[in-house]
Amino acid sequence: MPKSPTLPLIPGGLPLSGVLGFKCGAAYAGLKRPRPGVLDIGVLWAPGGATAAAVFTKNQACAAPVDWSRKVAARGRASAAVMNSGNANACTGPQGERDAAEMAAVAARALGARAAEVFVASTGVIGKPMDMGKVRAGLWEACIDATGAGKAKFERAIMTTDLVQKRAACRVRIGGRTITVAGVTKGSGMIAPNVATMLAYIVTDAAVEPKVLRTALAWCADRSFNCLTVDGQGSTNDSVFLMASGLSGPKITRPAGSAYGKFLAALEAVCRDLARQIARDGEGATKLVNVNVAGAKSDADAREAAKAVAESMLVKCALFGCDPNWGRILSAIGMSRAKLDPTKAKVEVGGVKVYDRKPLAFNPKAAKKALSVKELDLNVDLRLGAGSATFYTCDLTYGYVKINAEYHT
Amino acid sequence: MPKSPTLPLIPGGLPLSGVLGFKCGAAYAGLKRPRPGVLDIGVLWAPGGATAAAVFTKNQACAAPVDWSRKVAARGRASAAVMNSGNANACTGPQGERDAAEMAAVAARALGARAAEVFVASTGVIGKPMDMGKVRAGLWEACIDATGAGKAKFERAIMTTDLVQKRAACRVRIGGRTITVAGVTKGSGMIAPNVATMLAYIVTDAAVEPKVLRTALAWCADRSFNCLTVDGQGSTNDSVFLMASGLSGPKITRPAGSAYGKFLAALEAVCRDLARQIARDGEGATKLVNVNVAGAKSDADAREAAKAVAESMLVKCALFGCDPNWGRILSAIGMSRAKLDPTKAKVEVGGVKVYDRKPLAFNPKAAKKALSVKELDLNVDLRLGAGSATFYTCDLTYGYVKINAEYHT
Repeated sequence: MPKSPTLPLIPGGLPLSGVLGFKCGAAYAGLKRPRPGVLDIGVLWAPGGATAAAVFTKNQACAAPVDWSRKVAARGRASAAVMNSGNANACTGPQGERDAAEMAAVAARALGARAAEVFVASTGVIGKPMDMGKVRAGLWEACIDATGAGKAKFERAIMTTDLVQKRAACRVRIGGRTITVAGVTKGSGMIAPNVATMLAYIVTDAAVEPKVLRTALAWCADRSFNCLTVDGQGSTNDSVFLMASGLSGPKITRPAGSAYGKFLAALEAVCRDLARQIARDGEGATKLVNVNVAGAKSDADAREAAKAVAESMLVKCALFGCDPNWGRILSAIGMSRAKLDPTKAKVEVGGVKVYDRKPLAFNPKAAKKALSVKELDLNVDLRLGAGSATFYTCDLTYGYVKINAEYHT
Repeated sequence: MPKSPTLPLIPGGLPLSGVLGFKCGAAYAGLKRPRPGVLDIGVLWAPGGATAAAVFTKNQACAAPVDWSRKVAARGRASAAVMNSGNANACTGPQGERDAAEMAAVAARALGARAAEVFVASTGVIGKPMDMGKVRAGLWEACIDATGAGKAKFERAIMTTDLVQKRAACRVRIGGRTITVAGVTKGSGMIAPNVATMLAYIVTDAAVEPKVLRTALAWCADRSFNCLTVDGQGSTNDSVFLMASGLSGPKITRPAGSAYGKFLAALEAVCRDLARQIARDGEGATKLVNVNVAGAKSDADAREAAKAVAESMLVKCALFGCDPNWGRILSAIGMSRAKLDPTKAKVEVGGVKVYDRKPLAFNPKAAKKALSVKELDLNVDLRLGAGSATFYTCDLTYGYVKINAEYHT
């Protein structure tokens, strides 16, 4: 499995409105604490409509907007996606469901769309009723922004504890025409496999049938967002939305062939980069860690092993301390469902070879220096087969504890 | 399931040598950093022999002494248990196996026992060859201590990052005679279900057949050590040893009947209290948390739910911040294999009712005060069935990160 996308990304990404067929708007409704430049309502609009697909949290306590958006995704078409930050609209009962539906209705009215084609998402505090007076007004304003100049930043409206805005974009030639895939995402804590308190919005001007979009997104999410863990915690609201305006490129009508392959590669590159950006911005994180497991009995085993390492609090603390602690790494794999034989395994952390069938001598000072970086590879070769997988995670620091002990209900 | 043992414990516990048929010794061999009063070799001796049982880590990267002791346990008899701290003798290859065997041989020679009846355990750094010169000398000294006055503290020899010594004891009348069960344990980090970097030694003067001991220990471990999680990390060395000298009480030959029931209750009380002491002394912990789940579809479901809550970094950070964050609690259960219906569930943290089919209003200041305690109950009623389970955990603090970022390979 490649460690990084093979397709080159556009440096710095693109705003979603940089893709043909999409416009964006945002507003401040007063759901988040007021501070300069803060935004808490976002609108993504496809004036000409779009085919659509999405993946959602598997949490049984999923939020009302997730239930709403699942139905939109099932129909395969969307002309807008609206969201608010500051309130997750989760565990809010029947009123929460009515509020999610109303958010779609308000946007539909403002944009001249059908409510059934409006994705809804929320992120923030769980269990607090939505202040719909504020949401309604903010949503209206954001829609006006989207239909006009769209100056306010959608990427900023979706942020919660994120420290940086995250976007990624990729262009690829298909049948003599250039198609663009661009995405933005938010999320930095409560991040776990199978998508977790994160929202991602990905748009493309390619023309892709809904069921093909669905197949492509599932495949890419499995190799990106589902290989991402900050703290092993799935959330109530996680959603990845994908919309295709169809304004460029030839029609992609089946999940096979060269055109599909190229589109898939671009989508995967964008998803993978967004996932890595989330890990890098993990709550309190000082470094991004690519956990690469090779030589596993199967890909499934490799995934279990990579996940166990990426979720190990002990490994993550050691990485914060710049310690290539192979003992904790092998121990984490040993407790997972993946097959491990310590007399065969090999471990390398940040380029420092620390274990190869047995512990290797290494210079602790040089190792500490090698691990004092913003991004590193943690490579494990199990030497039991051909299975491989990569997980993305970050270190566990005082900052994580601080953020999560002080962020109150 | 009862939240606390029904049998009263002896306040402060007993030293293992306080039980008929057992003597203890300890020594400082120089495996741990020298400081006043430090010990790193321990010997528990049953001069007249004992029946024995044990449970061990399920980690595939288990340490050499675990392999050795598994064989001893399978034979059902032990006359000594020796251990060292400061070095785990894990991932040390064939030399590690020879070293574990030699530890048994040295103790057997010094105590006039058979090596095949000597349990061996190690705890400390993984992957470092044992300094057998030091171990041999220290072991000899500890055996001499055990055969003599046994003044040095076995409980202190087994400690690593523990801040306090942990012991528990219980007495019960069986057939007109009093039997005693006493245990000591170590462990404060890398603690997870299915036993994790912890060692526990439990002795009794009851006369119990090996296969009955095994059944009893498995039952009790499942309700104590296997319901304990500090950081979800299983270790390479975890072991719980149980030895019965048979010097008091009637013979217990089958796992049924009133005598067995009383013995089991005493053993369970000791195991449960030791497990709770470990959680209370969790690395960096400021509080012990009893996660009680009731109303689950089954006991297995209750266990999954309690484990998910007890292992949630987000819940544990919230408890450190004295925040009864039911959103994180329900979200953790929602991501587990346990069935959850948020419209039925009830959550109470530290006596503060925070959720009952829907969020409840509560005074944050009063809640913060209620949670600012050394021990609290986190009660969840899923209202889906009759399944229940209790897990023991602690909060996640700056201290945990500090210990585990600074403790180096």
